[in-house]
Amino acid sequence: MSHNSFGHLFRVTTFGESHGPALGCVVDGCPPLIPLDVAEIQADLDRRRPGQSRFTTQRQEPDQVRILSGVFADDRTDGRQFTTGTPIALMIENVDQRSKDYSEIRDSYRPGHADYAYDAKYGIRDYRGGGRSSARETAARVAAGAIARKVLAGITIRGALVQIGPHAIDRARFDWDEVQNNPFFCPDATAAAEWAVYLDGIRKAGSSVGAVIEVVAEGVPVGLGAPIYGKLDADLAAAMMSINAVKGVEIGDGFAAAALRGEENADEMRPGNDGRPIFLANHAGGVLGGISTGQPLVCRFAVKPTSSILTPRASVTRDNRPVDVLTKGRHDPCVGIRAVPVGEAMMACVLADHLLRHRAQVGTEPGPVPVFQPESFQSE
Amino acid sequence: MSHNSFGHLFRVTTFGESHGPALGCVVDGCPPLIPLDVAEIQADLDRRRPGQSRFTTQRQEPDQVRILSGVFADDRTDGRQFTTGTPIALMIENVDQRSKDYSEIRDSYRPGHADYAYDAKYGIRDYRGGGRSSARETAARVAAGAIARKVLAGITIRGALVQIGPHAIDRARFDWDEVQNNPFFCPDATAAAEWAVYLDGIRKAGSSVGAVIEVVAEGVPVGLGAPIYGKLDADLAAAMMSINAVKGVEIGDGFAAAALRGEENADEMRPGNDGRPIFLANHAGGVLGGISTGQPLVCRFAVKPTSSILTPRASVTRDNRPVDVLTKGRHDPCVGIRAVPVGEAMMACVLADHLLRHRAQVGTEPGPVPVFQPESFQSE
Amino acid sequence: MSHNSFGHLFRVTTFGESHGPALGCVVDGCPPLIPLDVAEIQADLDRRRPGQSRFTTQRQEPDQVRILSGVFADDRTDGRQFTTGTPIALMIENVDQRSKDYSEIRDSYRPGHADYAYDAKYGIRDYRGGGRSSARETAARVAAGAIARKVLAGITIRGALVQIGPHAIDRARFDWDEVQNNPFFCPDATAAAEWAVYLDGIRKAGSSVGAVIEVVAEGVPVGLGAPIYGKLDADLAAAMMSINAVKGVEIGDGFAAAALRGEENADEMRPGNDGRPIFLANHAGGVLGGISTGQPLVCRFAVKPTSSILTPRASVTRDNRPVDVLTKGRHDPCVGIRAVPVGEAMMACVLADHLLRHRAQVGTEPGPVPVFQPESFQSE
Amino acid sequence: MSHNSFGHLFRVTTFGESHGPALGCVVDGCPPLIPLDVAEIQADLDRRRPGQSRFTTQRQEPDQVRILSGVFADDRTDGRQFTTGTPIALMIENVDQRSKDYSEIRDSYRPGHADYAYDAKYGIRDYRGGGRSSARETAARVAAGAIARKVLAGITIRGALVQIGPHAIDRARFDWDEVQNNPFFCPDATAAAEWAVYLDGIRKAGSSVGAVIEVVAEGVPVGLGAPIYGKLDADLAAAMMSINAVKGVEIGDGFAAAALRGEENADEMRPGNDGRPIFLANHAGGVLGGISTGQPLVCRFAVKPTSSILTPRASVTRDNRPVDVLTKGRHDPCVGIRAVPVGEAMMACVLADHLLRHRAQVGTEPGPVPVFQPESFQSE
Repeated sequence: MSHNSFGHLFRVTTFGESHGPALGCVVDGCPPLIPLDVAEIQADLDRRRPGQSRFTTQRQEPDQVRILSGVFADDRTDGRQFTTGTPIALMIENVDQRSKDYSEIRDSYRPGHADYAYDAKYGIRDYRGGGRSSARETAARVAAGAIARKVLAGITIRGALVQIGPHAIDRARFDWDEVQNNPFFCPDATAAAEWAVYLDGIRKAGSSVGAVIEVVAEGVPVGLGAPIYGKLDADLAAAMMSINAVKGVEIGDGFAAAALRGEENADEMRPGNDGRPIFLANHAGGVLGGISTGQPLVCRFAVKPTSSILTPRASVTRDNRPVDVLTKGRHDPCVGIRAVPVGEAMMACVLADHLLRHRAQVGTEPGPVPVFQPESFQSE
Repeated sequence: MSHNSFGHLFRVTTFGESHGPALGCVVDGCPPLIPLDVAEIQADLDRRRPGQSRFTTQRQEPDQVRILSGVFADDRTDGRQFTTGTPIALMIENVDQRSKDYSEIRDSYRPGHADYAYDAKYGIRDYRGGGRSSARETAARVAAGAIARKVLAGITIRGALVQIGPHAIDRARFDWDEVQNNPFFCPDATAAAEWAVYLDGIRKAGSSVGAVIEVVAEGVPVGLGAPIYGKLDADLAAAMMSINAVKGVEIGDGFAAAALRGEENADEMRPGNDGRPIFLANHAGGVLGGISTGQPLVCRFAVKPTSSILTPRASVTRDNRPVDVLTKGRHDPCVGIRAVPVGEAMMACVLADHLLRHRAQVGTEPGPVPVFQPESFQSE
Repeated sequence: MSHNSFGHLFRVTTFGESHGPALGCVVDGCPPLIPLDVAEIQADLDRRRPGQSRFTTQRQEPDQVRILSGVFADDRTDGRQFTTGTPIALMIENVDQRSKDYSEIRDSYRPGHADYAYDAKYGIRDYRGGGRSSARETAARVAAGAIARKVLAGITIRGALVQIGPHAIDRARFDWDEVQNNPFFCPDATAAAEWAVYLDGIRKAGSSVGAVIEVVAEGVPVGLGAPIYGKLDADLAAAMMSINAVKGVEIGDGFAAAALRGEENADEMRPGNDGRPIFLANHAGGVLGGISTGQPLVCRFAVKPTSSILTPRASVTRDNRPVDVLTKGRHDPCVGIRAVPVGEAMMACVLADHLLRHRAQVGTEPGPVPVFQPESFQSE
Repeated sequence: MSHNSFGHLFRVTTFGESHGPALGCVVDGCPPLIPLDVAEIQADLDRRRPGQSRFTTQRQEPDQVRILSGVFADDRTDGRQFTTGTPIALMIENVDQRSKDYSEIRDSYRPGHADYAYDAKYGIRDYRGGGRSSARETAARVAAGAIARKVLAGITIRGALVQIGPHAIDRARFDWDEVQNNPFFCPDATAAAEWAVYLDGIRKAGSSVGAVIEVVAEGVPVGLGAPIYGKLDADLAAAMMSINAVKGVEIGDGFAAAALRGEENADEMRPGNDGRPIFLANHAGGVLGGISTGQPLVCRFAVKPTSSILTPRASVTRDNRPVDVLTKGRHDPCVGIRAVPVGEAMMACVLADHLLRHRAQVGTEPGPVPVFQPESFQSE
């Protein structure tokens, strides 16, 4: 058991505080012989990096990642770097800490933030920038996710912001290609333009707002997931809920499924040419009985509005006196935006873990359903 | 790692298929010296037991539980039975299997069910009654949850059905006392009456319908939960998502939080008389930064409609031929109903696990926040 | 984390007390499609079963095992039973409990036994027959080991008693075929005859004696084991040390290696015809760097003399008064004898676990060393 | 599951290769509010550091450790640094790599070393200085052990070299105070003088030799350890066996116990004044039934001779051609010497883990046995 690890066979342990010397992670269990260039990890980190638009925190962190172990290159590999099967440690040094910004909340609890809970549990907290509870920790997740993607050859994982505040996208305009064209990871160009105006208002009002993120994996082989308590969707739910500020997770139709009737919700099947069934719908979001079906894996999660706002709210001090708190540090008006690459990373890590789990128990790569033939059973 | 275990320190491993000889669980890590009578476990099981109204499956299973290990009584304990700290094994024998009901789906995949996914993963499945993927497995969860409740002295965990199909309760009429007065665990007497008519229609149509369950724990001490990847809410999300047919999980305001502004969502605090803050709202649902705040812990989850319906749906056979499937076995028209005690049990198990985790790392019972005093720091 | 489980991917959880209703285990993670007949498990249990000679306890336990879950047979499998990938629960009911034999040690601590330690830790203990600390628990290990053997096709695991009290075998007479010809699992027929006389004396004196067991696996593929903290030898050491009364574990030359010089200890290699090296010696016992080399895996462990003896020893009562303790129950004069099949079972479980771990990370079956070819590296 | 972690609640994950940029560890689960100064960790590292006498490798590594996370100091703590309950990451940069020393063994396997096994398992290895299999990894263990010691207030853990090659100490001269007076951690001044001459001969002959280390913990409270598969001695066995080059582990009398009779081996008890029994002997080495008894915890382990020697040995190349191998790099003539602080560190980590495990399940600090009183049982 480890409080700061996730995954079992593709196992990620993160460390670091917002204003400490560095943050990072150790990825254990990664298969050997996978080509891994630090630039690939950096590319994913750059998508999550703060300060890239006026809609995210202005903290300037290059988030330069360094690989400390677990890879090897020599002349026999033509200088290319490969994983070796040993733990891959990644480190990102913190650069732009302005710790004095936080000195005044040293003794006060920001409403909606983890301040009070950490103090109540541990009796001590690194309050600078939120310490361990800062969203800065998610940089380590994104770095680990970049490695997980390399393990998942053939699987494409993409995320998008599908709602900001009360404003959802028009799903008829959903276009993955739009996601990189706006600072919101929004797949709907029209909505993105409206959101820019809306979020400017929120930002100038010293307020913040929530969001909903959708992450989809395509090319997932059938058979990933381990019932009953290692279900693929259960692990995804935990992974997404562990991201800062997340308050809800859905798979497929999610809460809307509660209102459906059995015959509406059942994803019908027809025989496919490759011996695998073709699904006629995907209410299930790619998982049945905790196991992937080969359909797109669809997960959504809701992020609450940033707790650190410029509007004063009633609170208490450490010694239980009343106080009004407003947070002057640099913050994201909507932490949901930068949660998009984090959600992708978490899905990648969960899938990599389950790929390894499948190999372990079933002994083969996951794939098309075998037609049952008694003679194919292992003989003694 | 274990596919069929959940929890770390209060660890539950379940086993058993729907139509095998027995199902059960092993609860490992339970503290010693807790009085435990088999009747207490049976009482919880009886709430989940099928065949108690026309709205649940007519399979007649007494679900009689037997304790195989981990407890002890002698004349020194006045004959009362106590836990000993060793693993507690519980067994429930299956009695009313009608396996021939299922012979015709031996070679066909029920849409929306785990049939195809299990076959694709394992190449073999016990199709009788759904085998391992049957909701019958949740009896073992409820039994384990009954033990977890004994560990959680002072914490009350209650569940209710708050939506069935598209019909939600009126929250103004929410009354915990009503939950036991109707076959739906519905906290709104008016809604319960309407639901009976509605569900009769669903049932007679050979259809099924989804539901939303809400589970609330009161009396939870501040400090339970272990950031970053052992967050209380992340573990709850996994626990609830692991229940059969669940497609979404929310904590506190859940998805509704996405539409809120920061100042609306922040749960303000005022100093309390006992040195602990008083919260003025509970949008967070009792968790901040993955750690309990002492407020009621609020979790909701959505259950999809039962996949086993009498309406024929298009599907495929094991050898990839087209087939129309309808399921003749005895089934719940709304599996969400019996999911209420299961949700309570899962929350109890998660809280018991985190109580033990807190004791381990912090070394004390969780409780009110200590006022920070440097001299209270452990000296060398 | 689980106190009563071992293994990670081939994971065994045991339960049960010596005089409770039943003992057993849950084996989780076993691959599917392995033929498994209850008679195969029973055969291994029968080798460990008590009361088979005058040199083991006279308790008469049939140790009849029952499979509760995780296997399936139907007409498509010609009635043969196969594993399904779901947890396999095994149960053995206790039959011949004579609990009143132990009533007098209810309040006294047997020197060298776990009585005092259990009471000190838990404040309560099931003292009947030693409760959870009884060697009866090892029946569950042997049952699990029988399943592990099925996973390890091509690997032969055999154990032998190589020393009883101060009397070691003559290694020049070591003959695996002799092991089944005497009640000691002794590979040296001459020693076995001498031991019978010796142990009769021990038994009649109301005393007991220790032993050394050697377990060897042949046919182990190269590559099993996961450095640094999942080393094959480290897991073997824990597995063997967890057996009742074990006080020491060695791999290969073990403690004798301390006295060797580097050039003596180095197992030299020569090229083999199949592309794999041929080792010229096996001081290492088949493990280098925590990874199997393909040589025979050799493990020895020392068992202390049975603590339950008829000779009175000074001790204390629960309320700290002096007492002389002698144990009248039925006991083995040398628990080391029945530890032979237990040691084999533990090695089988460890190897099965590492086989699955290897498949997970490396993605292939373990085997001959691949000649390094840069083009064989996974391309992107 | 993690290949590179040990411990469950006090959980250590290490990373790093001998000639990579850095090595280190993440310690997760450490209790909060423990004062921790980097100098305390450095002091332990300095005892293990190479190049301190002519009897260890001449590689010059300052082993300067840096704390990256998990501690906090401000004016309220008077500048003293305390643990916060978040993961503590430690990093040691490699400085004195002479990788070209190893270029010639790039394609050859050193007999007795992990070279062949790593290549066979992973198909790739960082051969520079042994890569991950280098004893340099143990620096991370010692650093983690220094933190573990801080968790174990009141427990003293000391190690000594008790045998080098065939030369054991005279136990009548055992004096802990001597351990720091010689370069061997030898508790027998006379033996230390003889060993210096002996080891000079070994070193000059380009050979190497094995050793036996003894580690003893005093002040261990009664009750640590979790049967059946979390036994204190089983976890110690795994911890010690996971150290490079270790081939055997003993608790208490170890293998010598096999030759004892039951009445010799039973550690008799007499009532003590403090309500706890006084033991009259310690054959058990402080553990009964896997649980500590309050007696000194005694563990010994055997280290084989260093595999890297200047004497040529027959071996094979990667492509299976014959080769004679001799290792020119800088090496310890007896790796057992520097294993002494490593063994101490491993015992500290195991004890810290079990202290936290005890707190979790039993809910109190381990301590004197409670006199059984039914009314002290938890009431409902």
